Amino acid sequence: MAKITMTLPQDIQSSAEDYMDSQTHSNRPISSILIIIAMQTEALPLVEKFQLSEDHNSVFPKEVPWVRYHGMYKDLQINLMWPGKDSALGVDSVGTISASLVTYASIQALQPDLIINAGTAGGFKAKGASIGDVFLVSECAFHDRRIPIPVFDLYGVGLKQTLKTPNLLAGLDLKVGKLSTGDSLDMSVQDEASIIANDATVKDMEGAAVAYVADMFKVPAIFVKAVTDIVDGEKPTAEEFLQNLATVSAALDEAVTQVIHFISGKCIHEL
Amino acid sequence: MAKITMTLPQDIQSSAEDYMDSQTHSNRPISSILIIIAMQTEALPLVEKFQLSEDHNSVFPKEVPWVRYHGMYKDLQINLMWPGKDSALGVDSVGTISASLVTYASIQALQPDLIINAGTAGGFKAKGASIGDVFLVSECAFHDRRIPIPVFDLYGVGLKQTLKTPNLLAGLDLKVGKLSTGDSLDMSVQDEASIIANDATVKDMEGAAVAYVADMFKVPAIFVKAVTDIVDGEKPTAEEFLQNLATVSAALDEAVTQVIHFISGKCIHEL
Repeated sequence: MAKITMTLPQDIQSSAEDYMDSQTHSNRPISSILIIIAMQTEALPLVEKFQLSEDHNSVFPKEVPWVRYHGMYKDLQINLMWPGKDSALGVDSVGTISASLVTYASIQALQPDLIINAGTAGGFKAKGASIGDVFLVSECAFHDRRIPIPVFDLYGVGLKQTLKTPNLLAGLDLKVGKLSTGDSLDMSVQDEASIIANDATVKDMEGAAVAYVADMFKVPAIFVKAVTDIVDGEKPTAEEFLQNLATVSAALDEAVTQVIHFISGKCIHEL
Repeated sequence: MAKITMTLPQDIQSSAEDYMDSQTHSNRPISSILIIIAMQTEALPLVEKFQLSEDHNSVFPKEVPWVRYHGMYKDLQINLMWPGKDSALGVDSVGTISASLVTYASIQALQPDLIINAGTAGGFKAKGASIGDVFLVSECAFHDRRIPIPVFDLYGVGLKQTLKTPNLLAGLDLKVGKLSTGDSLDMSVQDEASIIANDATVKDMEGAAVAYVADMFKVPAIFVKAVTDIVDGEKPTAEEFLQNLATVSAALDEAVTQVIHFISGKCIHEL
């Protein structure tokens, strides 16, 4: 297998910087945010806190299981998208395919100024993560798309910068770390090697997919991830994840609430 | 990790059969097909053979790199979608995320009667595959979405039946086999175990994602996969894949051409 390198070609670096420049020069306050949350357990406390209503005349095709909750916080239009339950199996539609479809269709239908992907994640204690920690993500990449052909290898890794938010970080008590995304809850030896190459502190199943689509449409995106389980710890991931899901979801929702309060009335460049 | 089981709950089996029933009772000839092909090298011979035109006033958002080629064969409207080159890296947008986005947006914009996902694939000689073989796929599943929580495990595997086409099979000289999909070109030990559990003869990077979205919208889908490399053979996958890509693409395009000729003038239930 070709070595996965994380060095960005110069032109991509520049294009990302141009984009950030164009975004940070907008002086219009953020008027519409899109929150993408993969699991109902993670989403419902926020729906309640902001008294969001479920959309019964969906702006999306009738065939999709996705659920939109919407409402206002001060002058901020909030759309919270949950990919819903799989229509055949009845479990949350987790993972990169649903996340990318929901992000794509929501950008088209709702034209958000900012995307917030919030969710639970595995954390690496070797990189400073503990159960219940909430991270603001500095960059996203994939760890399960190994394509050992030159340039395709970089495409597979799919590294994307997130919106830089120094004021948000200074104002809130959040940790900062890199996120690595894959469609498995467990971690294979190959996944682990890629996660280390990605220098990731947190591991989820949606972030880099949301980042891929957001980047395609140049919509600024931030990623708030709360740690339910320690990947490099003693306990089996699935058990620890299920044990901590409800309490860590509360910490996640508290953090997202603080983020929304902070965003309200501000421009992108003030974050 | 929980054992991944391939036994379908009874209600899903029934719902798939209901769907096939509703489809096979339509007596309208197929009027519009959507061909989804991940790589330009695989797509261009077909574009030439059917003298398809590139769409310069895209029906898709201006930000996406996807390319639509379209034209008529007798009374059949052909749309061929290629996900295009990654705008930052310039390589074909392979893999499940692009494939699912293109399938979603194309179903919405083009309302096809039938989807054909065509492409190259790795084959398992232990299951009877040889370089240059073209397979018609009987079912698709994922091999890199391991979620060891009850029911989520089945969601991860994402098994989908393809449209049953006994007459097409009898009329064409194609092999039949199951397809397993993942976002890596190589194969880890975990991938291999899941591919064996999926009973797959061919392995690709898009099929099960196309099947997921097609199933969501109940659009019948068939999968034509040509073998570029032997996964359980001696040669490294990437090398063998690149060596055989052009010649096997020709075999693939010949098979897809035969499929289109066969489809022309027929109803879904006659396939």
